Amino acid sequence: MDNVLKEITPKSQDFSQWYVDVIRKADMVDYAPMKGFMVIKPYGYRIWEFIQQALDRRFRETGHENAYFPLLIPESLLLKEAQHIEGFSAEVAWVTQGGQETLAERLAVRPTSETIIGAMYSKWVQSYRDLPLLLNQWANVVRWEKATRPFLRTTEFLWQEGHTVHRTAEEAEQETRQQLAIYREIMEDWLAIPVIQGVKSAGERFAGAVETYTLEALMGDGRALQIATSHFLGQNFAKAFDIQFLDEDGQRKYAWTTSWGSSTRMIGGLIMVHGDDKGLRLPPKVAPLQVVIVPIARGQETARVLAAAGELAKRLAASYRVKLDDRPEHTPGYKFNDWEMRGVPLRIELGPRDLDKGQAVLVRRDTGEKIAVAQTEILTRVGQELDAIQRNLYQQAVEFREKSTRVIETYRQTEEYGYRGFFLADWCSKESCAEQLKAETGLTIRCIPLGSQPTSSHCVVCGQPPDKRVLLARAY
Amino acid sequence: MDNVLKEITPKSQDFSQWYVDVIRKADMVDYAPMKGFMVIKPYGYRIWEFIQQALDRRFRETGHENAYFPLLIPESLLLKEAQHIEGFSAEVAWVTQGGQETLAERLAVRPTSETIIGAMYSKWVQSYRDLPLLLNQWANVVRWEKATRPFLRTTEFLWQEGHTVHRTAEEAEQETRQQLAIYREIMEDWLAIPVIQGVKSAGERFAGAVETYTLEALMGDGRALQIATSHFLGQNFAKAFDIQFLDEDGQRKYAWTTSWGSSTRMIGGLIMVHGDDKGLRLPPKVAPLQVVIVPIARGQETARVLAAAGELAKRLAASYRVKLDDRPEHTPGYKFNDWEMRGVPLRIELGPRDLDKGQAVLVRRDTGEKIAVAQTEILTRVGQELDAIQRNLYQQAVEFREKSTRVIETYRQTEEYGYRGFFLADWCSKESCAEQLKAETGLTIRCIPLGSQPTSSHCVVCGQPPDKRVLLARAY
Repeated sequence: MDNVLKEITPKSQDFSQWYVDVIRKADMVDYAPMKGFMVIKPYGYRIWEFIQQALDRRFRETGHENAYFPLLIPESLLLKEAQHIEGFSAEVAWVTQGGQETLAERLAVRPTSETIIGAMYSKWVQSYRDLPLLLNQWANVVRWEKATRPFLRTTEFLWQEGHTVHRTAEEAEQETRQQLAIYREIMEDWLAIPVIQGVKSAGERFAGAVETYTLEALMGDGRALQIATSHFLGQNFAKAFDIQFLDEDGQRKYAWTTSWGSSTRMIGGLIMVHGDDKGLRLPPKVAPLQVVIVPIARGQETARVLAAAGELAKRLAASYRVKLDDRPEHTPGYKFNDWEMRGVPLRIELGPRDLDKGQAVLVRRDTGEKIAVAQTEILTRVGQELDAIQRNLYQQAVEFREKSTRVIETYRQTEEYGYRGFFLADWCSKESCAEQLKAETGLTIRCIPLGSQPTSSHCVVCGQPPDKRVLLARAY
Repeated sequence: MDNVLKEITPKSQDFSQWYVDVIRKADMVDYAPMKGFMVIKPYGYRIWEFIQQALDRRFRETGHENAYFPLLIPESLLLKEAQHIEGFSAEVAWVTQGGQETLAERLAVRPTSETIIGAMYSKWVQSYRDLPLLLNQWANVVRWEKATRPFLRTTEFLWQEGHTVHRTAEEAEQETRQQLAIYREIMEDWLAIPVIQGVKSAGERFAGAVETYTLEALMGDGRALQIATSHFLGQNFAKAFDIQFLDEDGQRKYAWTTSWGSSTRMIGGLIMVHGDDKGLRLPPKVAPLQVVIVPIARGQETARVLAAAGELAKRLAASYRVKLDDRPEHTPGYKFNDWEMRGVPLRIELGPRDLDKGQAVLVRRDTGEKIAVAQTEILTRVGQELDAIQRNLYQQAVEFREKSTRVIETYRQTEEYGYRGFFLADWCSKESCAEQLKAETGLTIRCIPLGSQPTSSHCVVCGQPPDKRVLLARAY
């Protein structure tokens, strides 16, 4: 435990180092012996499980079922959709030996599963009665990345990938948008991360998609994180994999497909949106521990305080995720720092004087506020404060984003803001302008926000008439 | 859906073909385009999720936490424990290329994770205060198998693997047995599969283990299935990976470790223990659907019956997993067969005459029994019948096992039973006898049942004095 208490780099001084310090010292992750791979420790994995549960429930409520497809995909299948393989070829890890034999055809460790799932769907979809086909998979994927960072970009990561088949383009597009709305709901209501919903420009689309919808969130250092995506694949994969159905009118038709995914990257976003110089700040809904009780007592008083703290922990445990920190080898001050580092939303301090007064002291991780509460009120008050913390973290993130979002006329303006934050601007849709923007400023077109329109008469790069409003940022 | 209704091979005629027919026609699984890989379809995957939930809850209640370790393991790590690599080397799939580069060291797709976890534990375990370390992982693993069969033996499968570290041998052995007891509880209480608890003979131990505990179940064709194992690893992995801790007495000591696992193989067991000539029979606790309602009506009566069936489905859905099968394109008879194939424990038939009498007819999948129940009693009665089905499936399996278990004096007796069933016998502990047994009869030593003692004066093979009571069977 002692490593937890070493100083972390202040967020304002070096955000990147702060991030790495926090995830290590909050005990979320460790580095594996192989470059680019991470080990997700229990404290990090528990957050993943809460996110999984929240998403899975909504997927199920909207008619999706879970299934499991193979990890390894034959190269010939991966090659079937031309744009798709072009997008992924540089990132694939290949199995070439099985046991003692060299394989006749090498197998890709799945970077994503459109191809193997497409191959199966072409068998399963025969009639309009088989549609819509609405499946989701929880799985690991591997992408051979050069520069990695725990949770944000790792060679292997955990995710869910939804893959659906529909009778009409309209239905598939509606599915794509519905899933985006579910992601938005979970990001905002569970992770307390405000997001911008939008459509990717052609240059930023998923390999093989007709339209990619995205959620973009602003991190604490003013960079953007693409936190979930939902793809309308048109008939591209249906044609590549021959997913056809006999329609009610007796005609054989190609189906329309979608895919949508979110990953352990969300945990990276959670850290970078809410963390501060003391470490993590976790929204109560996804916090492995919502309340930690720290007894404060010495000598003769110890037994009495520990007994009362144990009693309180038991009462709270019926409704909340609670831990009593009764480690005798550490001081209360050490414990405060330790649990602040781990982002536990609420701390309860309990000492002899509190007992005499029939109270306990709640300390909020988000604001530092100390609240003396009568023992009889604690159960209710804890619930109220957890709700308040959940809302406040979201509100703070919204305020930070609003403060960091600028409407600009020319991309040169981004320099004065150090290229940090969200920029709203108009764009002429030429990829050459997007490329120039990226080369000169490091900014990319994150998305065309849903429902947005150009408000000026000139592209932010070339000055020609624009046809899209776009969100610009440097991105993870 | 029409494939569901094609005939399946009778169980008594060809058990192996029956198994394959059932899993395909009950829509649990499909074959992937690559030999040895399966796709788990939603109906099969849902069963896996229920088993996962049941196990995970018990693991958590006994102090274990989930974590996630990398899929790919460097060859040098895999080589560290000599017996371990010897046991697995023929089964490993190797990644040799990442993106465009050929890897300097090839990476194993994990066949099991003792080695990568051992490498991490050697960093994490420093003091006796860090112990016990109790982690579990839900993951996919790959073993390059020659002969495969869905759920029972596939190149990739899903499982959980627990890995724990302890201060003393006693504590580690206790953990090993505790986890075996949890497996037994879930097998019996959830899957309704009776199991024999035992210890593996030296020749059948997990590669690198000091002692392997196992649960052995008897399948419908009289063959055994090893359905979960729990390994006491002694200090083998602690020494290979340098897992040492500073004990309270100031001495550095090697730790004691365990590992224990169960997989999608359990679903294979579920099918082979309970299935019959009509298809699956699922224990209610793990059935994706517990009740299916089939309205029986024609012409004018249709609207009235469908409305009542919908109403009933809504009432039941609050407490049970229910489906109303209102597909207009299929007859009631078709639907009966369809849901019997899928093993739904309880069917409710509802027709105009039932409505007139204020009743519905429950039909049990396990016994075929038809029970007319007053509408007002249905909610309660459904719960009672589901409980009864859960118990009855277990009881039937126990009876089948008892009937199929023989105490033998010499291994030649197994011929008269067609080498099928469980055989209890005494053994002298010589591997040469085990080898002769296997070569001549195909039987292997499944385990030394816990608490058993030899009851005769001669080894079942060589006739020399025995020192162990053993359970013999042909095994999957």
